[in-house]
Amino acid sequence: MTSADPVALAEALIRCPSVTPDEAGALAFCEKVLAEAGFATERVTFSTPGTPDVENLYARCGTGAPYLLFAGHTDVVPPGDAGRWRHDPFSGTIEDGVLYGRGACDMKGGVAAMLAAAIRFVMANPGFGGSIGFLLTGDEEGPAVNGTVKLLEWAKARGERFDHCILGEPTNPKHLGDMIKIGRRGSLTGHLTVHGRQGHVAYPHLADNPVHGMVRLISALLAEPLDAGTAHFAPSNLEMTTFDVGNPASNVIPAEARATFNIRFNDTWLPATLAAEIERRLAAAAGNAVRYEVAFAPTNATAFVTEPGDFVTLVQDAVEAHTGRRPALSTTGGTSDARFIKDHCPVIEYGLVGETMHQVDECARVSDIEALTAIYETVLGRYFMPS
Amino acid sequence: MTSADPVALAEALIRCPSVTPDEAGALAFCEKVLAEAGFATERVTFSTPGTPDVENLYARCGTGAPYLLFAGHTDVVPPGDAGRWRHDPFSGTIEDGVLYGRGACDMKGGVAAMLAAAIRFVMANPGFGGSIGFLLTGDEEGPAVNGTVKLLEWAKARGERFDHCILGEPTNPKHLGDMIKIGRRGSLTGHLTVHGRQGHVAYPHLADNPVHGMVRLISALLAEPLDAGTAHFAPSNLEMTTFDVGNPASNVIPAEARATFNIRFNDTWLPATLAAEIERRLAAAAGNAVRYEVAFAPTNATAFVTEPGDFVTLVQDAVEAHTGRRPALSTTGGTSDARFIKDHCPVIEYGLVGETMHQVDECARVSDIEALTAIYETVLGRYFMPS
Repeated sequence: MTSADPVALAEALIRCPSVTPDEAGALAFCEKVLAEAGFATERVTFSTPGTPDVENLYARCGTGAPYLLFAGHTDVVPPGDAGRWRHDPFSGTIEDGVLYGRGACDMKGGVAAMLAAAIRFVMANPGFGGSIGFLLTGDEEGPAVNGTVKLLEWAKARGERFDHCILGEPTNPKHLGDMIKIGRRGSLTGHLTVHGRQGHVAYPHLADNPVHGMVRLISALLAEPLDAGTAHFAPSNLEMTTFDVGNPASNVIPAEARATFNIRFNDTWLPATLAAEIERRLAAAAGNAVRYEVAFAPTNATAFVTEPGDFVTLVQDAVEAHTGRRPALSTTGGTSDARFIKDHCPVIEYGLVGETMHQVDECARVSDIEALTAIYETVLGRYFMPS
Repeated sequence: MTSADPVALAEALIRCPSVTPDEAGALAFCEKVLAEAGFATERVTFSTPGTPDVENLYARCGTGAPYLLFAGHTDVVPPGDAGRWRHDPFSGTIEDGVLYGRGACDMKGGVAAMLAAAIRFVMANPGFGGSIGFLLTGDEEGPAVNGTVKLLEWAKARGERFDHCILGEPTNPKHLGDMIKIGRRGSLTGHLTVHGRQGHVAYPHLADNPVHGMVRLISALLAEPLDAGTAHFAPSNLEMTTFDVGNPASNVIPAEARATFNIRFNDTWLPATLAAEIERRLAAAAGNAVRYEVAFAPTNATAFVTEPGDFVTLVQDAVEAHTGRRPALSTTGGTSDARFIKDHCPVIEYGLVGETMHQVDECARVSDIEALTAIYETVLGRYFMPS
């Protein structure tokens, strides 16, 4: 194996069973490969009372500007029942041109492509003048409190300043040239409680049914769209995720009902303005008839977008050059560590095809891993040595 | 104690801790008292696999017509924490003119008044010509499968035919002259399931939220009144009693939602026609958008009314004669054993004040027990010897 072979790197990473929060040798492997290629590396462990310690890796090659940062994670979600997999989920087996294993696309394959591209580039261009960095965490699939968010603050405190970042999450729905993510929606979770008065169903005038009150509140939340979408975002969307009463007696009106909702919201809103709009809708629907409380979970997932411009175009061009497809600029999907990076520098996300992520038989085409490496290498070339 | 003293009878009955299904001497006591007064008595035990055996008592004095039946139960609901009671719940203690104890108003006080009135009447009018009967069960507060419903069938099979029945449940909200019940609403319970498709909240187009579907169905059930009420009944009423999803993950759209409703319905409906109306509303609200199932629990609680007429007026007059209040004719409240009796003869319900039934410190005014006895005795006199 040469350290510039992304497929060999991906196989080696998959063979580390790095289910969050276990490092399992994955970051140590990345550190060794980067150090051999001349990167200055540093391992940083963060702790929070009540959560496991998490290891992270920071690496930098060069001291000049501009500074392009690659970000990613080496931790993976659990494989579930390994017996349901075609191959052992931590074997990193290639069959018919497809690499199987937990993390193949999310995102050890992407990390391998970054590593290989950067190593190839610095070997070929030792005096490129700028800086290339790696910010790799072992806490993306877990609570995400001792990973990227703290590593960024740690780097900032040391004086590190990034100009742009590429996060290698699997952004393509089906084909390698499908999609670059230039932002993400925010996420806001709210817990609703409706207080009623318990009683016998035969005497409803002596009781107050909280299920009816809750249905009224939810109907109001769902009645009107939150917005019509914005330039780079689909409309914000609210989903009720649970509704619980737990009353086994069909002749009793219960005392209380609880429900939870989650909103994926666009840049129309900040968490606080969105919470205010929800509170306004609830108050209007409740009037004096429904006694309720709403509590919003703390969130650091605000909506953000990296406005299209030179950097986004550069990446789009590189993808098109190698795939023949011009990738869409999207803000769909869940949250990612990009929500932390955007506070430090412009960030886009681009990686492998995510179709099998978190599933049994997670996999990545070998040809995709090689093409992604070439795309990242082209980005580096055009970023540091514009024609 | 003389057997014609209703307060002494009530005290004795309360001292039998006859929590369903325990007979605890209560029916044996009634049998002894009635037999001593010349009633032919029979104890009948019914069994159902999976439920405890239940004892019942049937008694009759006279062989002629007309036949007036008194019905009631000697079983009581559990007292809960006896330490929270002012007096031991099975001590039958009188304090300041009030008799305390479990069953004082529901309905050992009523049974005692019936016994005393009937005994006084047959002692004073040995050749009254008609028949007076007692149908007492130990399974009213429990599953109600081995009590009144079976005892009525048993009596019918023996050739017993009743002309009218008075069930001595506590029908008065506040004062002894408040209310006679001439019917009861029916009860229908339905279980709703909405099938969705689980998914990530960030990708709602790939999922189908069953909470939203259920809210839509419930809104449709609650949108329009079921009816406007009828001559003797308030409008039918639907209450949602529970709504359960049990999804702890605020980033996951759940796969299924379940809810239960109970309808107390008037004589606009039969259980089958009401179920059809509910199914119609659900189908209209669901369209092709909501996949759901509704299952109705078996019910023997249909709405019924004993039309006002000579018998009802006779009882109303007797109540007014002793209380100075003309009792309202009502069909409110839960279900009772009257739903079984109405298939055998016209039935009305009249008894003590029910304000404390099923509560800690259940009680009945001594003066009310005595007045109720006098009312029942007046009913007997006017029923068998009209002026």
